[in-house]
Amino acid sequence: MRAILVIADGLGGRPTDMGGATCLERARTPNLDELARKGALGLMDPIAPGVRPGSDTSHLSIFGYDPYRVYTGRGAFEALGIGMDVRSGDVCFRANFATVEERNGELIVVDRRAGRLSEGKELEGAINEIDLSDLGVEFSFRASTEHRGALVLRGKGLSAAVSDTDPHETGVALHEAKALEDSEAARRTAEILNEFSRRAYQVLRDHPVNRRRQGEGKPPGNALLLRGAALMPHLEPITNKYGIRGACIAGGALYKGVARAAGLEVLSVPGATGDLRTDLASKARAALEALESYDFVFVHIKGTDNAGHDGDAEAKRAFIERIDSEFFGTLLSGLDMGQIHLCFSGDHTTPPATGEHTADPVPVLFAGPAIRPDKCEKFSERAAGEGGLGRFSGRLVPQLLSYCDFGEKFGA
Amino acid sequence: MRAILVIADGLGGRPTDMGGATCLERARTPNLDELARKGALGLMDPIAPGVRPGSDTSHLSIFGYDPYRVYTGRGAFEALGIGMDVRSGDVCFRANFATVEERNGELIVVDRRAGRLSEGKELEGAINEIDLSDLGVEFSFRASTEHRGALVLRGKGLSAAVSDTDPHETGVALHEAKALEDSEAARRTAEILNEFSRRAYQVLRDHPVNRRRQGEGKPPGNALLLRGAALMPHLEPITNKYGIRGACIAGGALYKGVARAAGLEVLSVPGATGDLRTDLASKARAALEALESYDFVFVHIKGTDNAGHDGDAEAKRAFIERIDSEFFGTLLSGLDMGQIHLCFSGDHTTPPATGEHTADPVPVLFAGPAIRPDKCEKFSERAAGEGGLGRFSGRLVPQLLSYCDFGEKFGA
Repeated sequence: MRAILVIADGLGGRPTDMGGATCLERARTPNLDELARKGALGLMDPIAPGVRPGSDTSHLSIFGYDPYRVYTGRGAFEALGIGMDVRSGDVCFRANFATVEERNGELIVVDRRAGRLSEGKELEGAINEIDLSDLGVEFSFRASTEHRGALVLRGKGLSAAVSDTDPHETGVALHEAKALEDSEAARRTAEILNEFSRRAYQVLRDHPVNRRRQGEGKPPGNALLLRGAALMPHLEPITNKYGIRGACIAGGALYKGVARAAGLEVLSVPGATGDLRTDLASKARAALEALESYDFVFVHIKGTDNAGHDGDAEAKRAFIERIDSEFFGTLLSGLDMGQIHLCFSGDHTTPPATGEHTADPVPVLFAGPAIRPDKCEKFSERAAGEGGLGRFSGRLVPQLLSYCDFGEKFGA
Repeated sequence: MRAILVIADGLGGRPTDMGGATCLERARTPNLDELARKGALGLMDPIAPGVRPGSDTSHLSIFGYDPYRVYTGRGAFEALGIGMDVRSGDVCFRANFATVEERNGELIVVDRRAGRLSEGKELEGAINEIDLSDLGVEFSFRASTEHRGALVLRGKGLSAAVSDTDPHETGVALHEAKALEDSEAARRTAEILNEFSRRAYQVLRDHPVNRRRQGEGKPPGNALLLRGAALMPHLEPITNKYGIRGACIAGGALYKGVARAAGLEVLSVPGATGDLRTDLASKARAALEALESYDFVFVHIKGTDNAGHDGDAEAKRAFIERIDSEFFGTLLSGLDMGQIHLCFSGDHTTPPATGEHTADPVPVLFAGPAIRPDKCEKFSERAAGEGGLGRFSGRLVPQLLSYCDFGEKFGA
């Protein structure tokens, strides 16, 4: 028995999206409706009723982890989200390129975002050439959008109980990181951060990119501000917990990162862009192929959320129709529904009417031989409210894998 | 967008209440039925399935707090419930006026309830004139019904880890409070309690009320027995958490106390008595007025619970009809339902057939622009069991405020 979970990011909607109906309700979805007739629907609060989920926390919850226990702060998941290799025990920081000036031997922050520079990727290499091996620690830095980036420290005896070097205001000196608890690990981590900051200034100060920016009258990105120390938690891989092999098909870095942390192998799929241009048939074909060698395949489709954030209800409706025809049309033509359990849902609601994640519960569809069918004839938010699976919080993966009889009993 | 939560205390019922139907099912409720047609219904377990809620714990849960984490004991909420000002960190006790006799230098408890005296309010003033400033602590005592009252200690270095002075039996000496943990705060609090007990005996022993009672052959209330030390927990105000201004309209002291602890301003409303005689139209008018200056208004209506405790099904049915006509009739005539989200429910079930709080789930109604309508045509327990919101535990306020897009994301 195999299992496939398909998450359309931000799938849920509100009646305010399309004049009294959600985008899903207005979309023509014959394949999903056919699955709804065969299977059963329900409503999921991604984390808990009335909690507005982030994509990171909701995916943790969907995979069966308690986000209140394992979500240690944005730093770790931000690093995961820009595609960095982050392992349990790593200490992660959010980072900014900033502009500092030397005055009386101090580095005074004059622009916390270095004019929102666009050359972060060019500076990234110089940062990663810094050698901290004398301090017994490995690190990795990655630039993301504009002035943003993330730093990951790896090694023994590190702690996330350290203060920011980011002063969070201008006109003051770059802060020295300090231990926030009385431990050798915290003191050592603070020293490493301060030494890293000094060396980063040395390599950035005269970097050609910054000379060019200064020549153009732009503020140089000559320092890195670090904030939000977070320890990457230990997530017990679901592959261990359920004794399975699992794979992930996703375009967005965050989803790949969470999947990797959960023990899945991240497959590279041509045309999976993580946005509305994604090649949905290609993802479906990749899922069919993966199901030949993996017990569990997780497919993440991002475009629904993008259209929701853009406030574009028509684009969301049209993309849902593409998910139905291109993704599920392709997938279902290659599946033996007697040999698989399938779950389709969203990770939260992103109504185009608000353009933000909201706490509203999300429709869920389960289909497969073990699923008790209900009376639903269609896949939609309202049908899901009448579905035979009722309302529950997160935990789609544990349910799906349990229908396939993977996993151990709790108790005897 | 504004939000209003209306709680009819003990609203839920059982089919045993009125020959096969609940009081709500037998009541004529055209306004609630109209709201049910526009909105959606569900069932709420106030705390969790099968947990019989108190009014304090259920309100904590409805406001989004975990009662298993913040309900530190009856002392703190009993003090809140009789209208005392209780703040985070205060140590609270339930108190009894009792009768003691001096024998061989000991105070022997001869009546733990001082003949269920009725003069508690007259003795209260003498207690509050005790000066504990030499001990570096402030306190407040309030008498409630019969021999009952509550004591609140406020100051630095206090602890709730102290034993009762109440021996819980007669014929033995008033107990010395003892530290229940090895801490300076616990030892200090025990000393303060013992000193308070001695001084209370001194001011009560010869109090005119007690001389009069003794003249009438009644046992004097010449000592205070203290029990159930409880620390008032820190509740993060929902006004902070959601960045809103909130108000409470209630007659009963407990509901005002919980609302105050949750950050709401308690409004004074003429005719809000906290019982069956309450002026429901006045409360609705006050709610409409409050909605002009507050983002969130919580209205508590107590009479349903009173009728339930009285075992008077007909009174409960008639009061529900008054809630529909007087409260909702007035409220809805002044609301623009395109600009508000409304939630109506109970805090638990109080079936007249049992006369006690029961664990049965409670019907919930949500209405407003973000709510996906369901097929329910009527507001009742049975309709709610088929409602599009399914079944969930507590958390009405987080859901309601999230529909209004208040509050931050958890995660990114």
